[in-house]
Amino acid sequence: MSAAEETPGGEDMPWGEVTPEAARRLLVAAVEAFAERGYHATTTRDIAGRAGMSPAALYIHYKTKEELLHRISRIGHDKALEILRAAADRDGTAAERLADAVHSFVRWHAERHTTARVVQYELDALGPEHRAEIVELRKQSDGAVRRIIDEGVAAGEFVVPDVPGTTVAVLSLCIDVSRWFNTQGRRSPDEVGALYADLVLRMVGVQK
Amino acid sequence: MSAAEETPGGEDMPWGEVTPEAARRLLVAAVEAFAERGYHATTTRDIAGRAGMSPAALYIHYKTKEELLHRISRIGHDKALEILRAAADRDGTAAERLADAVHSFVRWHAERHTTARVVQYELDALGPEHRAEIVELRKQSDGAVRRIIDEGVAAGEFVVPDVPGTTVAVLSLCIDVSRWFNTQGRRSPDEVGALYADLVLRMVGVQK
Repeated sequence: MSAAEETPGGEDMPWGEVTPEAARRLLVAAVEAFAERGYHATTTRDIAGRAGMSPAALYIHYKTKEELLHRISRIGHDKALEILRAAADRDGTAAERLADAVHSFVRWHAERHTTARVVQYELDALGPEHRAEIVELRKQSDGAVRRIIDEGVAAGEFVVPDVPGTTVAVLSLCIDVSRWFNTQGRRSPDEVGALYADLVLRMVGVQK
Repeated sequence: MSAAEETPGGEDMPWGEVTPEAARRLLVAAVEAFAERGYHATTTRDIAGRAGMSPAALYIHYKTKEELLHRISRIGHDKALEILRAAADRDGTAAERLADAVHSFVRWHAERHTTARVVQYELDALGPEHRAEIVELRKQSDGAVRRIIDEGVAAGEFVVPDVPGTTVAVLSLCIDVSRWFNTQGRRSPDEVGALYADLVLRMVGVQK
């Protein structure tokens, strides 16, 4: 399941930007190992072994285990921000843009649930500088969603008494899909995305 | 922060049902260790050490690390079910009962966020029998919320096109509070509970 999800060369090449291929294989192995056993229970030896490489070969690409986690977290957070900014910046009403943001963000968390769990649950394992960098990206993601909601309120489309709190709740609802989503379940990532877009429009007071 | 949260003898004695006191101390130590380093990176020696006890003293109370995780998970899930059933069974309209369920459930996840994270994120580490037992409790929690929503729809209070999907989303929204809640943050557990009760009523189509 997670192997199928994360294998490079899959439908949309999730780690396509990571080169050379050995560095990408190690990243995929690290995601699987962190997801199964947790960051602290995983050694660089485990990761190298999963990737069919020697520990020495791993050190050519990543100096520390934390560097691997940071690379995974950075790519995941860049992708999240890209999805949310694209929805915030596109043409359309605030309701259309919020529905788009939620639909795409949920679909990503469902399709890439193994990666998303590592990205979300191992934040505390990052070193202080890397953590600060990721926290900044998270603020920007929050800002993109908050902007759509603010614009919807200003345009009279939304009725939201607490914009910051509602923004946190919307992002949280989407992110938690990575915890419960099951590829063997009844709903596809796209179906969950559509359901959640509808629920979030209700949260901001859009009557349909 | 987590130490303050979990210390027995705190405001509401979260582990009050665990006796004798040595068994309770070990449970509190296990929650902290699992939350900090993950289940797989924690040894029974670590847990005994945190509790100021010897590994031999630990084995008097818990035969395995998994038994500790099961005990934590069982108590957490029993509490969750108790909160949701109490709200489902009380007098009042469906809207009042759903607001009560969400408010109480969110408050618990905020106040006991360290315990809740362990309970939610380490399910896969349980042995097959214990896992089946916990999955059954989770189905009952889901059932309590679904019952309120079904009754609200039947009474004409709620408009919900997809009751099972909405039930999953409501529980997920509440559970994820344990991931992001920060005791140093701007909102108290009670304030987050009130905000979320309002957002969930919107999700089920209650106009206020």
